[in-house]
Amino acid sequence: MSPLRLIVEPVVRVALLEDLGRAGDITTEAVVPAEATVEAEIVARQPGVLAGIDAGLLAFELVDPALRLEPICKDGARISRGETVARISGRARGVLSAERTALNLLSRMSGVATATRGLADAIAGYKAKIVCTRKTTPGLRTLEKYAVRLGGGANHRFGLDDAMLIKDNHIALAGGVRATLERARRHAGHLIKIELEVDTLDQLAEALEVGVDAVLLDNMAPETLRRAVAMVDGRAVTEASGRISPETAAAVAAAGVDLISSGWITHSAPILDLGLDIAT
Amino acid sequence: MSPLRLIVEPVVRVALLEDLGRAGDITTEAVVPAEATVEAEIVARQPGVLAGIDAGLLAFELVDPALRLEPICKDGARISRGETVARISGRARGVLSAERTALNLLSRMSGVATATRGLADAIAGYKAKIVCTRKTTPGLRTLEKYAVRLGGGANHRFGLDDAMLIKDNHIALAGGVRATLERARRHAGHLIKIELEVDTLDQLAEALEVGVDAVLLDNMAPETLRRAVAMVDGRAVTEASGRISPETAAAVAAAGVDLISSGWITHSAPILDLGLDIAT
Amino acid sequence: MSPLRLIVEPVVRVALLEDLGRAGDITTEAVVPAEATVEAEIVARQPGVLAGIDAGLLAFELVDPALRLEPICKDGARISRGETVARISGRARGVLSAERTALNLLSRMSGVATATRGLADAIAGYKAKIVCTRKTTPGLRTLEKYAVRLGGGANHRFGLDDAMLIKDNHIALAGGVRATLERARRHAGHLIKIELEVDTLDQLAEALEVGVDAVLLDNMAPETLRRAVAMVDGRAVTEASGRISPETAAAVAAAGVDLISSGWITHSAPILDLGLDIAT
Amino acid sequence: MSPLRLIVEPVVRVALLEDLGRAGDITTEAVVPAEATVEAEIVARQPGVLAGIDAGLLAFELVDPALRLEPICKDGARISRGETVARISGRARGVLSAERTALNLLSRMSGVATATRGLADAIAGYKAKIVCTRKTTPGLRTLEKYAVRLGGGANHRFGLDDAMLIKDNHIALAGGVRATLERARRHAGHLIKIELEVDTLDQLAEALEVGVDAVLLDNMAPETLRRAVAMVDGRAVTEASGRISPETAAAVAAAGVDLISSGWITHSAPILDLGLDIAT
Amino acid sequence: MSPLRLIVEPVVRVALLEDLGRAGDITTEAVVPAEATVEAEIVARQPGVLAGIDAGLLAFELVDPALRLEPICKDGARISRGETVARISGRARGVLSAERTALNLLSRMSGVATATRGLADAIAGYKAKIVCTRKTTPGLRTLEKYAVRLGGGANHRFGLDDAMLIKDNHIALAGGVRATLERARRHAGHLIKIELEVDTLDQLAEALEVGVDAVLLDNMAPETLRRAVAMVDGRAVTEASGRISPETAAAVAAAGVDLISSGWITHSAPILDLGLDIAT
Amino acid sequence: MSPLRLIVEPVVRVALLEDLGRAGDITTEAVVPAEATVEAEIVARQPGVLAGIDAGLLAFELVDPALRLEPICKDGARISRGETVARISGRARGVLSAERTALNLLSRMSGVATATRGLADAIAGYKAKIVCTRKTTPGLRTLEKYAVRLGGGANHRFGLDDAMLIKDNHIALAGGVRATLERARRHAGHLIKIELEVDTLDQLAEALEVGVDAVLLDNMAPETLRRAVAMVDGRAVTEASGRISPETAAAVAAAGVDLISSGWITHSAPILDLGLDIAT
Repeated sequence: MSPLRLIVEPVVRVALLEDLGRAGDITTEAVVPAEATVEAEIVARQPGVLAGIDAGLLAFELVDPALRLEPICKDGARISRGETVARISGRARGVLSAERTALNLLSRMSGVATATRGLADAIAGYKAKIVCTRKTTPGLRTLEKYAVRLGGGANHRFGLDDAMLIKDNHIALAGGVRATLERARRHAGHLIKIELEVDTLDQLAEALEVGVDAVLLDNMAPETLRRAVAMVDGRAVTEASGRISPETAAAVAAAGVDLISSGWITHSAPILDLGLDIAT
Repeated sequence: MSPLRLIVEPVVRVALLEDLGRAGDITTEAVVPAEATVEAEIVARQPGVLAGIDAGLLAFELVDPALRLEPICKDGARISRGETVARISGRARGVLSAERTALNLLSRMSGVATATRGLADAIAGYKAKIVCTRKTTPGLRTLEKYAVRLGGGANHRFGLDDAMLIKDNHIALAGGVRATLERARRHAGHLIKIELEVDTLDQLAEALEVGVDAVLLDNMAPETLRRAVAMVDGRAVTEASGRISPETAAAVAAAGVDLISSGWITHSAPILDLGLDIAT
Repeated sequence: MSPLRLIVEPVVRVALLEDLGRAGDITTEAVVPAEATVEAEIVARQPGVLAGIDAGLLAFELVDPALRLEPICKDGARISRGETVARISGRARGVLSAERTALNLLSRMSGVATATRGLADAIAGYKAKIVCTRKTTPGLRTLEKYAVRLGGGANHRFGLDDAMLIKDNHIALAGGVRATLERARRHAGHLIKIELEVDTLDQLAEALEVGVDAVLLDNMAPETLRRAVAMVDGRAVTEASGRISPETAAAVAAAGVDLISSGWITHSAPILDLGLDIAT
Repeated sequence: MSPLRLIVEPVVRVALLEDLGRAGDITTEAVVPAEATVEAEIVARQPGVLAGIDAGLLAFELVDPALRLEPICKDGARISRGETVARISGRARGVLSAERTALNLLSRMSGVATATRGLADAIAGYKAKIVCTRKTTPGLRTLEKYAVRLGGGANHRFGLDDAMLIKDNHIALAGGVRATLERARRHAGHLIKIELEVDTLDQLAEALEVGVDAVLLDNMAPETLRRAVAMVDGRAVTEASGRISPETAAAVAAAGVDLISSGWITHSAPILDLGLDIAT
Repeated sequence: MSPLRLIVEPVVRVALLEDLGRAGDITTEAVVPAEATVEAEIVARQPGVLAGIDAGLLAFELVDPALRLEPICKDGARISRGETVARISGRARGVLSAERTALNLLSRMSGVATATRGLADAIAGYKAKIVCTRKTTPGLRTLEKYAVRLGGGANHRFGLDDAMLIKDNHIALAGGVRATLERARRHAGHLIKIELEVDTLDQLAEALEVGVDAVLLDNMAPETLRRAVAMVDGRAVTEASGRISPETAAAVAAAGVDLISSGWITHSAPILDLGLDIAT
Repeated sequence: MSPLRLIVEPVVRVALLEDLGRAGDITTEAVVPAEATVEAEIVARQPGVLAGIDAGLLAFELVDPALRLEPICKDGARISRGETVARISGRARGVLSAERTALNLLSRMSGVATATRGLADAIAGYKAKIVCTRKTTPGLRTLEKYAVRLGGGANHRFGLDDAMLIKDNHIALAGGVRATLERARRHAGHLIKIELEVDTLDQLAEALEVGVDAVLLDNMAPETLRRAVAMVDGRAVTEASGRISPETAAAVAAAGVDLISSGWITHSAPILDLGLDIAT
């Protein structure tokens, strides 16, 4: 489900005000008659996965509540080049003033969904799922994590506070895998899971001895990954990470891991090109 | 100059709170002793142009004002793989809790600067300059426009309110190039420039007749661009746009335009990979 | 066009909450029955130019969305003493609780429009236009600049970021008119205009040599202004400033300048007296 | 005492961000070298009463915390033309970028204080004191009420919630003076005072019979005021209102009222002209 | 009357976002079908006084504006165990996601009203009224003071700024009762009342000599209170304070004071247990 | 560790501004000389567990950054009646103006910690731990959950988004225990735990068959609880809930559950009485 408007609206307001500034859309107010109306369509300029239709249409609504907004495609739909994803009609001024903000939101979120879909498709047939990271755009985490789900991925932690992910620096500072895991378990609430990043199979063995919910197998070669999965043998969720691309993902998935995490799908995915066509 | 802290700090606060949530960094608090200290370095994992050092360090400062923050490289510097761009030392907990937010800001801004630099280098020797668009990340416009400057680009409008950019839809709604331009000039304040998007040389001729500060030559082939530049003959700034890439930019620049605008440098540039190395 | 509700609403909310405080309108709640209804009219107590009807009515709507709000006059209308500019009807409590905030907004904005109109009328027949400055009320810049337009004036810069205005201190710090203008042109984006303040005709000559979009002729006597306008000879927009009043404006306009700027219309214009008449 | 920084700082931040916009002070950044320093003075361009020195200097501090800020005069001081009220020194860029916002705050507040002082001086020798109203600038109530005190005035209600002021509309809706006052007294907390607006001596008589803390004698001729004061005979505070000016105030004060309220001192007082002189 | 939505809505939004976090109600979204609808009732699990029905229902509305909301009981009603106070129907997801926030607001406010009612009932027959203090929950003062009124209590000051309450520390710092009171009266606006805390009858005598609107008789034994009331003899409002409970209140009231203040009704009242019953 | 200042400061600012209003602490400003200084101590008026010392002292710092703040006891300390927990010295005005807000925060948080400690002590010797719920004060969840930890309790979910807790209504809407749990597991991210509320042993058996991280045994009699614990036999965390009090907790703990959850410790715990003693 799309995140609640209660959560999304502040983000859309900030985006609109950032574009409108103090004086508003001075071009449109100068040249477009107040009474002019348009029929407009948001159209995909390239194929991909749609994400953010609610956020995009909300930009139009906040600028002019009298606009008629009609979503045609649903979030998560695979859309083709030239496909109309939504129609907007009403006063031309509102449509033009909200256009860029709406498209910025929609094309970025769809870019994340499409990138995720690409990775997910690359490992279809394997049990592994693509998961995101905390390498999201500042201010847009909820929207980007939602787009990841639409693209067939699953969500990792939403932030530092909803699960424990013990990394190499934690282990170094806390005195080794065993000591760190034990401290973590003592402090973790009963609904908090613990994942531990391991760089070697020795660390993995130590972690499994103490017990852990998930292990992050960082930057391991496929063969090492395979041995790690075998060692785990179902006692923990296995997650592989490290410069995953559509080209390399299948080899990682073939190693039998449960999850493959990718920062790229949120921090470096290109947008999905969407445009607004106006029939004046 | 880096944007004023007054402007940047609210963005960094939102980013930190988005990551820290209600309960904060539960992993670090559970496993890292309160008194542990570290020496840390922000290190480039790939070559590029640095941008956002103030914003990145501010994330650490807001989490723990007692941290010692030492920038090594300056914004705009070309950095190489393995180069240290800043040092942070002090309590380990603060360093670890701010790390991801700091890197998210820094790597995204540096990604924009690096992408811009790539385009700018591709047209070195020509008079043309790279300019950005309004296709920026919602909430981060000021930071991304600053990164564009660091990468050797120039800034286009910051928003809908600081200059007039008349697009095809405006022209259609206002009744042609001449009528639109005349309306625009009547309404424009004396410090507001007017740019007009033209799709054909006929439109260009009409615009030049009326007079305009700049023309946006959208999606024209290099040969058409060349003819357009000749027609303009210095009477307006010429800007070319339309799917500019490092591969195609030089051909466009060779047509003699003043500016080449790229949405890609802000909406789809991959991040520049930077990491935090900790000596515990 | 009235500024978007998206931009105005936060200002009106702050104003209402400032008046309502924690406990709200304790007088009205104590003495006016919840079910009492009224027909009310906003009436001009003196002649002038109306500005802010949307902002004023929004105050009523935010306090009680069930009120019927009917604007009678439009923003920019010349209104006479005793003229009804809007009708409000519905529950008495809401009307009374919003009254002061609505009138504070409306009478201040109308005061700005009326003052501007006074200056504009004083120079009717000349080509010069009245422009505002950045000497606006903190927090109300968008609303006051809009009121200036309604009064027949034009807008100068909205802030420090949408155009360059080089003042005497800039020139002193940057090393003279030529050096300053050259630095400014190197840094200005292609849609940023540059205006330069000159105190003498020598400075003006230097500025025209380098080239500049507009010149601010500060505190010059009418005769000097006339010579300045002749020197400029259409190569730049000419703006005169310095203690402009309805009495002195015509003499300045007669010198042939394009613009006459006035801080007084925003920082010191008296309000236009408007009141709320209630038929109980 | 100056209002707490906790209360004032949000107002100053809003004012600064309104002026700096997204891109900041582009003129200063383009032409003034980063390392340039200045000694600057805030100087009165006309005589008056100073108000807002803390708010004004806070604008400089928020833009550049490294600036040295030295108040010379205190809030409430009578200052003469040419007098220096504060010194600021440090990096030129910060001084120039904050200048306008600082002066806008300072000159508006000083304008209110000076206007109040003018009225207060006009009634020196009488027991009456000048009081303000709720006709303040939206968003600036706390600052303007403080300026009124500095000018020798006293504060009326700060908002709708800290005292009851029963006006003619309340009386009409609640069924007459007696019924209204009785309802008010039933609902008023034990620390809430009640003031009643009366238009006639009959209403006054009725109010005094029921008992009331203060009476607002609206738009009464001096002779009627005198009779009203005699009728009250110390049983309530007497406040006169209605188009008070320095010319008419003494006649009103001579009628023996305790308070004379003026909306003009906050809604229409001209600013006090203050400027920034820079020794470069 | 319930506080204006303008004032209450920000509090409810903060409460909802605190519960929904970044990812929203993940349980409900996972297991409850999007199209499922419910009929729900808010039911009292114990007898008490209802308070906060508007705030509670607003939580549902903000999560899903399409929900049908039907208040059954009014704020201030005495409700019995098992009584239905409101009905909500519509999409199940919205009902479940808002439930906890709505109940948290409603049960806390009803707890305050019920506790106040308990104290008020304990002194029924005496003239004394229960009043609240500033010992309220941070962020909820307006809502809790409203609940106090619903429970039959009256409101004391809403904050530090709407009346003067001189406490023992003030007296010590200002140099005794007389000096303090005189300073207070010199500074107090004409609509500001002054209350003074006295610990002894000597202090009371001194206060009455100077004159004061109310006296706070702190921690006096009933017999001393009775003598204090006699000394005051109607010249000031008398307020008793100090560990008031339903058991001790009547003895205090019997001493003849006007007001009995209790911090307990806001800082330590247990909630009134209300639950949501869903007919699926 | 105390929550980060970044998270706590906005809560403390809201609390202070709620108390200071528009005009600030008018009593203190009227009667206490600006130069007066004090030595003050925060002293426990009853024994309990201290919580919130950072938040309390932050209130003083935000009102007057020049105050010297010296914590004497640490959060979590058991304090006795009369014990000094912190010292504050400096200008008297700041101390008095911040006092109430500081104490409101400190006494509420300490009340939660003390109530938790009481329950925790009641079950000392058993393996069970006390956990909190989402029945917290709107706006104060982070602070109250922290206080629970200080009192020897553990934290349950912080909100709807960090773990799944399937309640009776979810089960009814989703079609039974098995179907619900299976849907939940399909949607839960790999770091999300699932807890299920069961009302009967049959439901428990079904849940254990499908597999679940924790079970909430709601309102079961001790004997039923014992049988439930035996059935679970370590396969899930067991949590008992339902009107837990210090009197009943031991019987519940004796049944062998892992956790006992209490809403009372956050929604109805009385404050811990702390006061400010001033040596003037």
